Amino acid sequence: MVNLVDFEKKLQEKIRKADEIIRSYLPEPKGFSRKIIEAMNYSMTAGGKRIRPILMFESYQMFGGNKSVIEPFMAAIEMIHTQSLIHDDLPAIDNALYRRGRKTTHAVYGEAMGILSGDALLNYAYETAMQALFYLDDTDRSIQAMQILAEKTGIYGMIGGQSVDVENEKNDKQVLDKELLDYIYLNKTATLLEIPLMIGAVLGGAGKKEISCMEQIGTKVGLAFQIQDDILDVTSTIEELGKTIFSDEQNYKTTYVTLLGTKEASRRVESLTKDAVHLLEMLPGEKEFLSQLFLYLAFRKK
Amino acid sequence: MVNLVDFEKKLQEKIRKADEIIRSYLPEPKGFSRKIIEAMNYSMTAGGKRIRPILMFESYQMFGGNKSVIEPFMAAIEMIHTQSLIHDDLPAIDNALYRRGRKTTHAVYGEAMGILSGDALLNYAYETAMQALFYLDDTDRSIQAMQILAEKTGIYGMIGGQSVDVENEKNDKQVLDKELLDYIYLNKTATLLEIPLMIGAVLGGAGKKEISCMEQIGTKVGLAFQIQDDILDVTSTIEELGKTIFSDEQNYKTTYVTLLGTKEASRRVESLTKDAVHLLEMLPGEKEFLSQLFLYLAFRKK
Repeated sequence: MVNLVDFEKKLQEKIRKADEIIRSYLPEPKGFSRKIIEAMNYSMTAGGKRIRPILMFESYQMFGGNKSVIEPFMAAIEMIHTQSLIHDDLPAIDNALYRRGRKTTHAVYGEAMGILSGDALLNYAYETAMQALFYLDDTDRSIQAMQILAEKTGIYGMIGGQSVDVENEKNDKQVLDKELLDYIYLNKTATLLEIPLMIGAVLGGAGKKEISCMEQIGTKVGLAFQIQDDILDVTSTIEELGKTIFSDEQNYKTTYVTLLGTKEASRRVESLTKDAVHLLEMLPGEKEFLSQLFLYLAFRKK
Repeated sequence: MVNLVDFEKKLQEKIRKADEIIRSYLPEPKGFSRKIIEAMNYSMTAGGKRIRPILMFESYQMFGGNKSVIEPFMAAIEMIHTQSLIHDDLPAIDNALYRRGRKTTHAVYGEAMGILSGDALLNYAYETAMQALFYLDDTDRSIQAMQILAEKTGIYGMIGGQSVDVENEKNDKQVLDKELLDYIYLNKTATLLEIPLMIGAVLGGAGKKEISCMEQIGTKVGLAFQIQDDILDVTSTIEELGKTIFSDEQNYKTTYVTLLGTKEASRRVESLTKDAVHLLEMLPGEKEFLSQLFLYLAFRKK
């Protein structure tokens, strides 16, 4: 049995550490371009839980990694995640004014700066990740990590999934079939959990099979994470969630809940998470916290 | 004296070759994400003159480069340039419906897809450039080239310049001072000419001083290019230009023409271009076409 108080304490400490690392990679707002740097940093310090950088760090440690080469990648994945949120929130896409209980970037800095600060963060993620190429011991593995980052962020990953999501939202009351919904979830959400688990493994010195296993774990945890998001959208309150609830219903969005109902959707979250923990157990290294984190993400209340 | 007919013939042939290379790096529209790939390719095949990839190739050859490692970078710089145009044209920024005589990307595919296809192209530029890291002879120089690409694209380059431009457009009738205008032109426009000249030099095996000289040349040619753009906006016709004319005036935009007048602005184009050609002449290698291209860009009519 997990001691929840102990786990939460550990998690808070890990969030604090990841946050510190991420902040150390943020650009300083100065010079003529001060405003866009402020907009980037506004969104990067909006109280995110740093889940993806923590997953990366845990995976890295699990495979024996103990150097700072992981740090630029921890910052980079959070920049890419944040970039996707900024652009998702834009008026032309989700038109969201609040996230994590704060005004969204475009709501504060205007739509043009919302677009550009997202571009800036995406680009800065690569500038940051490239710093890892100068840790001479690890050049080959850093290149491999960069490639995973780029491929799973682009049209064959996150941005591809997001584009299909946006394209199908327009067809107001059309219900998506499960194949299409899975495509969106796997690409839009799950890739962003596969990336950190895989990069941690690559830089930690894992073998091909282990890296592939971490990818599969990321897929399962990511899918569970998104389905839980669907569930929270209908079962949570705006105070708990810090953002609009029933937004999926209002947007006529097909979700796992609309396709399967809350109960069956919850069962999926549970079985995907169990599978992920089971796969994790087959790997070497210290992974107690990581498996607890998977459970925590699956059964989170916000 | 330059034989203009000969030069134009050579240029057309070089455009054809660059275009062929660029197209070979475009993703194939298939699968669920077909739409966003179509939107990317729509803008990437909209009849751009491939100036930046050609500059890169010429610089590469001038320093003795003769391998295909340059090709992914030629495609990547054109993707980044195109990304910046797609996002510039969005309703929240320039709200342009036509470019190069064709409808802009958001005008055809919608605003959300305009945002996402720009994101996709920016990301795909890095995916593409990374292919050069697997040309084993050149890994170190490929990394250096990637770094130039990323740094000069981001907040300390193109995106930074664009953000300051956007920020100052809002102050309707305020006239910018020359320092601020130079900052915008140097970052928004000149960086995108510095990048190809520098990357060509880096991959071609140039030394530090030569790379720095190519950067300076790019700065001058880029500044001249943008000032000529200002001049064409007030002296050209919509048929010649393929896009809206007098757009700067309608947007109360400060330009070199509004600050200095057409005549003095033309003089600047001339002297910057002369300086660039002079710097180029001090470098080794075959550069006749490149210096003609600088003149052609400076005195272009559209």
